[in-house]
Amino acid sequence: MFDVFGTLVDWHTGVRQAGELAGRSVGSKQDWSQFALDWRAGYGPAMTAVNDGRASWQTIDGIHRAILDELLAGYGLETLTEADKQELNKVWHRLPAWSDVGEGLDLLRQNHLLAPLSNGNVSLLIGLARTNGWQWDCILSSELAGKYKPDPSVYRTAARLLDLNSAEIMMVAAHVGDLRAAAATGMITGWIHRPLEFGPVTPPPKFDEVSPTIAADLVAPDLITLSRQLADFNNRNIVDA
Amino acid sequence: MFDVFGTLVDWHTGVRQAGELAGRSVGSKQDWSQFALDWRAGYGPAMTAVNDGRASWQTIDGIHRAILDELLAGYGLETLTEADKQELNKVWHRLPAWSDVGEGLDLLRQNHLLAPLSNGNVSLLIGLARTNGWQWDCILSSELAGKYKPDPSVYRTAARLLDLNSAEIMMVAAHVGDLRAAAATGMITGWIHRPLEFGPVTPPPKFDEVSPTIAADLVAPDLITLSRQLADFNNRNIVDA
Repeated sequence: MFDVFGTLVDWHTGVRQAGELAGRSVGSKQDWSQFALDWRAGYGPAMTAVNDGRASWQTIDGIHRAILDELLAGYGLETLTEADKQELNKVWHRLPAWSDVGEGLDLLRQNHLLAPLSNGNVSLLIGLARTNGWQWDCILSSELAGKYKPDPSVYRTAARLLDLNSAEIMMVAAHVGDLRAAAATGMITGWIHRPLEFGPVTPPPKFDEVSPTIAADLVAPDLITLSRQLADFNNRNIVDA
Repeated sequence: MFDVFGTLVDWHTGVRQAGELAGRSVGSKQDWSQFALDWRAGYGPAMTAVNDGRASWQTIDGIHRAILDELLAGYGLETLTEADKQELNKVWHRLPAWSDVGEGLDLLRQNHLLAPLSNGNVSLLIGLARTNGWQWDCILSSELAGKYKPDPSVYRTAARLLDLNSAEIMMVAAHVGDLRAAAATGMITGWIHRPLEFGPVTPPPKFDEVSPTIAADLVAPDLITLSRQLADFNNRNIVDA
């Protein structure tokens, strides 16, 4: 199972470019990299509010739109039409994948069932799969649990739907919190290093999130390498058993 | 969205052959076509009990196993090992598709998002997709609603997860009850005629289920024909609009 934002897709580039395009249409010149960071930054607190029970469930599409509405004026985008705002909000459905992802998923799919396990809602994840030509065995989303990662119910719901024990599942992510929560439910963990998730800023804004500060079962720079490591990992475990 | 048992896969042939194979392993000769019909027949009442609140939720895998356990002695299969019983129960994860389905889904996928909407649980539907090489955009199942078709919540849950209005969705099935329930929630309906669903018995055991006794928006003998009809249907509706 794969985390998606940051792990499989380069949201920073996709959102920066969409902001720039929207800005051009209304004559607004801004720091669109910062726009991408600001939009993304509102997402964590909104999910935490849902998990804490301070807010009722809403999808990431809804959360993204609420954050966008707060950012519009500051970035000179308040004159966008409603249709343009909806279109801009949908950029999260058509983000570009990191360059290794297509080939990596194809390799992994030869021997494994593959699914996203993302805080993105189901329709968003369908959009990203169509945009990037990914073939999943099913779409797993926090939306199916009514809570957001890292709430343990999200990982448990996914295992239940797959009818697998947690120990039969590897969670693959570029983020500490996701892997820590998956490991706590008994899953195997795979770390993918995505140093450019937050753009080419040094040091990254969330250094603890993009550096392997927990012990993952596998650590790889990309999914192609992970597929080779996983073949070795499975062989080793079969020999051990 | 597609019904699966009977509409996409030939459960009668798959289950008959699996019964025959299991019987041979323990020296039992029986009417394995009847075995398939008996196994399938227990499924409706068990689902109705869940929908009526007389039974708590259990997956189709669980329902199939309970029915199988009741049939074992009558078909001379009581000496199967527990592992063999589990394997036999999983025949529902690897049923063969009707011959038009692979090509039909590939054609439909060029212009439409495709998902099963089945009473089969998610892991069963993943198994059928892998067995038959189908590429879905997501897996939709009654399991995600905690009720079985034809309960309206199943269709509504599917539309919500796709973030579509019901009127944007076509439900494709070979069964009256499924299409009637889908239409009641506002969906477009596509009828596929599968006269051999219950095997080559004349008349079929459930004639009302395998004959088009309701007015569907489209009626086709197979998915390839449906894909052509749907292209015409969409063009017509665009011209009308």
